[in-house]
Amino acid sequence: MSIDPTISPTSRASGEVMARLQAIAAERASEGLAEKLLSLRTFIDNDLRQVEEDLAAIERKETPLHRSVHHLIAMGGKRLRPMCVALAARVGHGFSDGARAMAVAVEVVHNATLLHDDVVDVGDVRRGAPAARVIFGNAASIFAGDWLLVDALDRIQRAGHPALLIRMISTLKEMLDAESLQLANRGSMRGSVADYFRVVEGKTASLFGWGLYAGAIAGGVSVEHAEALERFGRKVGVCFQLVDDLLDVGGDAAHVGKTVFSDLREGKSTYPLLLAVERDPDLAAMIERSMGDSLALDPELERLAARALRDGDVLDRCRALALKLTTEALVELHSLPPSQARDALEGMAIALLHRSK
Amino acid sequence: MSIDPTISPTSRASGEVMARLQAIAAERASEGLAEKLLSLRTFIDNDLRQVEEDLAAIERKETPLHRSVHHLIAMGGKRLRPMCVALAARVGHGFSDGARAMAVAVEVVHNATLLHDDVVDVGDVRRGAPAARVIFGNAASIFAGDWLLVDALDRIQRAGHPALLIRMISTLKEMLDAESLQLANRGSMRGSVADYFRVVEGKTASLFGWGLYAGAIAGGVSVEHAEALERFGRKVGVCFQLVDDLLDVGGDAAHVGKTVFSDLREGKSTYPLLLAVERDPDLAAMIERSMGDSLALDPELERLAARALRDGDVLDRCRALALKLTTEALVELHSLPPSQARDALEGMAIALLHRSK
Repeated sequence: MSIDPTISPTSRASGEVMARLQAIAAERASEGLAEKLLSLRTFIDNDLRQVEEDLAAIERKETPLHRSVHHLIAMGGKRLRPMCVALAARVGHGFSDGARAMAVAVEVVHNATLLHDDVVDVGDVRRGAPAARVIFGNAASIFAGDWLLVDALDRIQRAGHPALLIRMISTLKEMLDAESLQLANRGSMRGSVADYFRVVEGKTASLFGWGLYAGAIAGGVSVEHAEALERFGRKVGVCFQLVDDLLDVGGDAAHVGKTVFSDLREGKSTYPLLLAVERDPDLAAMIERSMGDSLALDPELERLAARALRDGDVLDRCRALALKLTTEALVELHSLPPSQARDALEGMAIALLHRSK
Repeated sequence: MSIDPTISPTSRASGEVMARLQAIAAERASEGLAEKLLSLRTFIDNDLRQVEEDLAAIERKETPLHRSVHHLIAMGGKRLRPMCVALAARVGHGFSDGARAMAVAVEVVHNATLLHDDVVDVGDVRRGAPAARVIFGNAASIFAGDWLLVDALDRIQRAGHPALLIRMISTLKEMLDAESLQLANRGSMRGSVADYFRVVEGKTASLFGWGLYAGAIAGGVSVEHAEALERFGRKVGVCFQLVDDLLDVGGDAAHVGKTVFSDLREGKSTYPLLLAVERDPDLAAMIERSMGDSLALDPELERLAARALRDGDVLDRCRALALKLTTEALVELHSLPPSQARDALEGMAIALLHRSK
């Protein structure tokens, strides 16, 4: 997939379909996110309970490695990726044992990356609690991440879908290529917008895509429809990250100035900041000087960045791109026959677009 | 495999066969290690050159991740694991493209573990040069290790031996369970001899075993003979580690007192030290106080440890166990029909037993 960040009508969907779906997205969003998410959860509540059971049943020895694993997993999180697997499986004949294995595996991979990311980013807090590495040490988090990765591959292998194992290996390559690119650009604003989307697609979208594809295949969906679901997952994954970026710079204009800029502190550029730097190139050097300083941002920089974000159409452009991606994702969904699962996926995509945390 | 560290005649092989093979081992060793290794290298020289080509051709981008990978790989190392793969393949119909892929994969996995181990152990030197993490940072080494692991799985998968991919996933689980146990016992001498062998089998022997098995299967050897080669590999792997341990405490009695104790400094117990502590329990508490201090060992401790190693029959017992394991490995080999490759494997096992670095 290649992200086209321009907001003009895309080649993927005709202007007419896009307009209709944008209207749907806007309208449905106003129906109330809370209810939408609630009905979504109810639909797959039992599936997600089974996933939690399996996650809690991951091997639990009295070692720093296993304690790190269970410390992180017990903190919960959104469980978005298992949700994607369950909904995709329900597009087919339902949440089979195979789909259950894939739902657990995708969450296990996600947790493996969090353990390594926290060591790499020297992150102290994860899911509102001290990161595993703070309690059990970096060594335990490094090996726990390795262990979870191998555990996920083993689950996929034992579920008897060799093609999904092979696809997971490709997905992991894509994720690590993205980590590699992000690390190479770390502490710098010289990375291009194209690099930014390569990182987001690799780190986030590819695993969402795998989850949708794997759930679909394990649920007996045709390869053609599974591929449409994968494209849906990738679009939703990029949108998820864009909304994260927006929340990181303070969300809507009313909150800019109370920015958190946590990505900036970790030396990572975000889409809004890349757009702000495009408008005000002087900002780049100033941001770079402050990047990676986890203690405090220069107040002058914070003021300038907030102004660049507020004065330009930066936040509007981000939100417009997120809406465009969601709409494109919905176009993919509409190639599938109507079903409760399809509606639920639509609801999920819209809810993720409008989330505020 | 379960290691029996007692030196009495084993149940695996009759006393007579053992005695004969011990005599062979002792006799062949005296024939000159240098020539033995030279003829071994000549036999598979071309195979190993192909492995080097593939290792050098690993994706090479201008990122800290890829630089870390190539920094470590360019330093060389013994390439023992690819050697095992090549020799096992030559027990069958030769070093096929499949065997070549397995030989590269096993070295790639080994290098992945080194990158993570150096971060975990805060290791500054690797293969006589600054460790990759010292030059390119811990973050790059963590992701580079992940990347290499996935690269190895991808190579095995593309070579079209699904059973070997599944077996590698099990091997990786075994390796990480061993890392987990070693980490749990870190800085302590309370770990049992049984724990020690569990760690060695998991961390070292399992990958040797996989290499022999994978080379054999890719070379068209029967499963029965491939399994004998795997058992050979595991025995040789444990023996390899025992000799490492002996070298770490100064090798032969003449050198004790000029000990290096590098494992001790990293908080890891070794077999000779476990035996020494069995003889002198007071030593355990003293060692634990010094463990993990990378700067210097208490000279009094060093003196006591050296005395415990010299006075007891500790070094003799280590060497006897290494000889026993090599002999058992040779018994496994002798279930195969005679061939140049079998002789070369025998030579390799004996050379590893008698190495001095």
